Amino acid sequence: MRILFIGDVVGQLGLSLIQHYVPELKRQLKPQVTIVNGENIADGKGITEKLYKALLQAGTDVVTLGNHAFRKRDIMDFIDGAKKMVRPANFPAGVPGQGYTIVNVNQTKLAVLNLQGRVFLDAIDDPFTKADEVLAEIKQITPLVFVDFHGEVTSEKLALAYYLDGQVAAVIGTHTHVQTNDARILPKGTAFLTDVGMTGSYEGILGVKKEPVIHNFLTKLPARFEPIETGAGQLGACYIDIKDDTGVATKIKTIRIDKDFPLEV
Amino acid sequence: MRILFIGDVVGQLGLSLIQHYVPELKRQLKPQVTIVNGENIADGKGITEKLYKALLQAGTDVVTLGNHAFRKRDIMDFIDGAKKMVRPANFPAGVPGQGYTIVNVNQTKLAVLNLQGRVFLDAIDDPFTKADEVLAEIKQITPLVFVDFHGEVTSEKLALAYYLDGQVAAVIGTHTHVQTNDARILPKGTAFLTDVGMTGSYEGILGVKKEPVIHNFLTKLPARFEPIETGAGQLGACYIDIKDDTGVATKIKTIRIDKDFPLEV
Amino acid sequence: MRILFIGDVVGQLGLSLIQHYVPELKRQLKPQVTIVNGENIADGKGITEKLYKALLQAGTDVVTLGNHAFRKRDIMDFIDGAKKMVRPANFPAGVPGQGYTIVNVNQTKLAVLNLQGRVFLDAIDDPFTKADEVLAEIKQITPLVFVDFHGEVTSEKLALAYYLDGQVAAVIGTHTHVQTNDARILPKGTAFLTDVGMTGSYEGILGVKKEPVIHNFLTKLPARFEPIETGAGQLGACYIDIKDDTGVATKIKTIRIDKDFPLEV
Amino acid sequence: MRILFIGDVVGQLGLSLIQHYVPELKRQLKPQVTIVNGENIADGKGITEKLYKALLQAGTDVVTLGNHAFRKRDIMDFIDGAKKMVRPANFPAGVPGQGYTIVNVNQTKLAVLNLQGRVFLDAIDDPFTKADEVLAEIKQITPLVFVDFHGEVTSEKLALAYYLDGQVAAVIGTHTHVQTNDARILPKGTAFLTDVGMTGSYEGILGVKKEPVIHNFLTKLPARFEPIETGAGQLGACYIDIKDDTGVATKIKTIRIDKDFPLEV
Ligand SMILES: [Fe+2]
Ligand SMILES: [Fe+2]
Ligand SMILES: [Fe+2]
Ligand SMILES: [Fe+2]
Ligand SMILES: [Fe+2]
Ligand SMILES: [Fe+2]
Ligand SMILES: [Fe+2]
Ligand SMILES: [Fe+2]
Repeated sequence: MRILFIGDVVGQLGLSLIQHYVPELKRQLKPQVTIVNGENIADGKGITEKLYKALLQAGTDVVTLGNHAFRKRDIMDFIDGAKKMVRPANFPAGVPGQGYTIVNVNQTKLAVLNLQGRVFLDAIDDPFTKADEVLAEIKQITPLVFVDFHGEVTSEKLALAYYLDGQVAAVIGTHTHVQTNDARILPKGTAFLTDVGMTGSYEGILGVKKEPVIHNFLTKLPARFEPIETGAGQLGACYIDIKDDTGVATKIKTIRIDKDFPLEV
Repeated sequence: MRILFIGDVVGQLGLSLIQHYVPELKRQLKPQVTIVNGENIADGKGITEKLYKALLQAGTDVVTLGNHAFRKRDIMDFIDGAKKMVRPANFPAGVPGQGYTIVNVNQTKLAVLNLQGRVFLDAIDDPFTKADEVLAEIKQITPLVFVDFHGEVTSEKLALAYYLDGQVAAVIGTHTHVQTNDARILPKGTAFLTDVGMTGSYEGILGVKKEPVIHNFLTKLPARFEPIETGAGQLGACYIDIKDDTGVATKIKTIRIDKDFPLEV
Repeated sequence: MRILFIGDVVGQLGLSLIQHYVPELKRQLKPQVTIVNGENIADGKGITEKLYKALLQAGTDVVTLGNHAFRKRDIMDFIDGAKKMVRPANFPAGVPGQGYTIVNVNQTKLAVLNLQGRVFLDAIDDPFTKADEVLAEIKQITPLVFVDFHGEVTSEKLALAYYLDGQVAAVIGTHTHVQTNDARILPKGTAFLTDVGMTGSYEGILGVKKEPVIHNFLTKLPARFEPIETGAGQLGACYIDIKDDTGVATKIKTIRIDKDFPLEV
Repeated sequence: MRILFIGDVVGQLGLSLIQHYVPELKRQLKPQVTIVNGENIADGKGITEKLYKALLQAGTDVVTLGNHAFRKRDIMDFIDGAKKMVRPANFPAGVPGQGYTIVNVNQTKLAVLNLQGRVFLDAIDDPFTKADEVLAEIKQITPLVFVDFHGEVTSEKLALAYYLDGQVAAVIGTHTHVQTNDARILPKGTAFLTDVGMTGSYEGILGVKKEPVIHNFLTKLPARFEPIETGAGQLGACYIDIKDDTGVATKIKTIRIDKDFPLEV
């Protein structure tokens, strides 16, 4: 099975890039499953039902989230019905939404699990312990598991990947919005990438206008960060090939599309 | 002028990799200047005079540092005499050591400036303002400036790079120990890379043994993080070509050497 | 000279308490100068011109601020004309507003200086170095200096107080909204109190409704914190007696007014 | 039942103050139970078996801990046998030691529970959820519960106290080393105090020498913080009266002993 994973989609420009490139990437790469992190699609923070549906419409099978999952209020109105959307599984008990979902691929099933780091992020539940807990459930259903680990620091991401090495097909990081150049397969067969990068403007800072970010660093005055919605775009992604029987990865490759690196997979 | 820059050297294994690969990289790439971040060379935290000299001996022209600069006590005994070593320029006034140094390259001079971010790191002086201040000095001497910006988060690194775009040849990030895949030249000519990566063990977490890191995440008990000193290594680097007259970059390219990506520049 | 200082006024209820108790406290204590921290007066975060004037109207001589100083947009419209208002002096150069102001008291002058800590707060400029810088200016005008040090942690507040001991009449902490029980005069004559406490609801958490705060701790979902505007109130204050010639403190005493401790100075 | 609780004992000087004042405080106040926070007794960070026994010897019934609980290595050798010592109950599962202990007082039993906050402290398990879990166990044994809540910020401490209001006799904060002036009984009968303060030197900063603390703020260079072991001392404490049948508090009063406030309860 081949999985295509695309990192944090920022704003309308990010959605346009998904709509533009996903069909082309699917044509070239022929993934069985396409997963997109959508935590920044609504004005840079959060997601709405309309945008969730637009992502599915554009060819996405599963939408993952992160620390901005609950920023738009109306998520509460649709999250429990959004069967193809996952928020970090280690949010405290009682929080709406699901931490993983199952995708049917021919005769097999792929579990897509979302977890969130805690270093320099909110103190939600421990992602390591939660992974153990949730994997025990998932393994009743399927041995094939993809993990979007939404986190800030490199050490936590690699630590979780080693911790789950051999138990899941892939641990791919999101949140920093910058793709890392360390794609590899760990000793026991888990594909790993510290961060897959973002999808949105290529001209700002992490998808938002650069002037307010710089002004905030210079003055420490409150700032409003707005997605850039026009101009050059970028798309950060990777694909992973996994064995359908064991769930072990055989290949991981990053994809960077922008004006410096035009699409040529 | 071509500059070769190599990221955070961790422990003795990191030093061996420098000793092994720097001659080969110089042969192939023919850089005029070789710069190495050495903040983790002494047992993973800090630097000693002996190790500083070993880096120079191995072909390094300038050693940059970061948040671990002052972790080994004996740095106080040699830092003021270490003319080829720079610590972040935005440490408060009165702190020993220098924030930049000048390297003579034929008829030209290259300034090597070290700055440190403040997001999720110590509250030292503002790197943006300090950059303005120090560049005013440097520009009296030379228009060619290389910046090692040691920082945790992607937004701060790119913000500083845009802030200095056109004024310096390159802003290259260090500290996260994971190379990013976003090398580019910004609109006004500054080469940028969020993080160049590290040099040391390929088998642990950021150069140190993985078991204590994972144990610490699971238990929150105090842990001692030790560099891995044997086994497979990795080297994270990049090279930048700059115009000797204007100091503008014309090319930036990352280098990743490890068993998955053997040396072939 | 006697100085009355009242801590962080939260919302309309906080303002009512000021209007109610300041006249009575003045009658009983006969302070020459009354200073009030107003960073939370506008809906819990920030200040408006109308509320600034209401504080002056209620008998306040100087309004100090803190990390929420710039939260309401319209501060930009009046801050430069607000001669009796100070924001932390260690905001970066170029930020509107003033860090200290001078109050005339009979034949003498009192400087009121606002500084902000950096531990667990924004990385603005170093308050220690800034204090040196600003005091050099102030001492040209008057030896009498009152400092509102807005900070999170106890160690930073006491460290600054010791650092300034003998140079200023008082270092009084704000920001935690809980009055501490450690009022004292340091060896060289500076009065010190880690935190003076807040003025607003006695029934919530730091002046705001408790249910959203608890819900946020339990779920880590975004929450809106709103001041409680009715019901029982509390007022946190202290007064300091200083020598008009040397600016050294001779007495410091805390004032806590709430239903458990009704006003009886 | 009357409970005497004494805050963070720092170093040998802290122990001497316990040895000196506990007998006198017991004589005057006649508490049935004496509890002491000992997380800083061993050189300012952690505890050893010898010092644990010295605290018991000095008249302590239970020793509570906090974020420094595990700083001295030898705690691992005696923690599981230390029946009168508790470490924060919300350390992850599998961590040695106990989170609460039961003290027999005539015909009744008092549970002493230690919890730790997470704001600006390590991301251990959620203290709110853990409190629910542990109280369900404790309530099988006794309705009388004392909580030492070790935390940094005022909001988290008061939030937990309101959350447990009516279920426990007292929530008393530790960790900031500065006693607060907000002792009260919450609406449903739980006694609350944001922080009880510390026991150790009166002349330094939180019990340690002030010069290295100030130097660290000025330079951001690494510093070694050492307890002050001679000179003037201070003791921070409180006592709480609770009803033996319902476990509701009827009185809470702070005690501050230092040269400015000599012992006179
Ligand atoms: Fe994101
Ligand atoms: Fe995120
Ligand atoms: Fe490093
Ligand atoms: Fe570093
Ligand atoms: Fe405040
Ligand atoms: Fe504040
Ligand atoms: Fe403590
Ligand atoms: Fe503590």
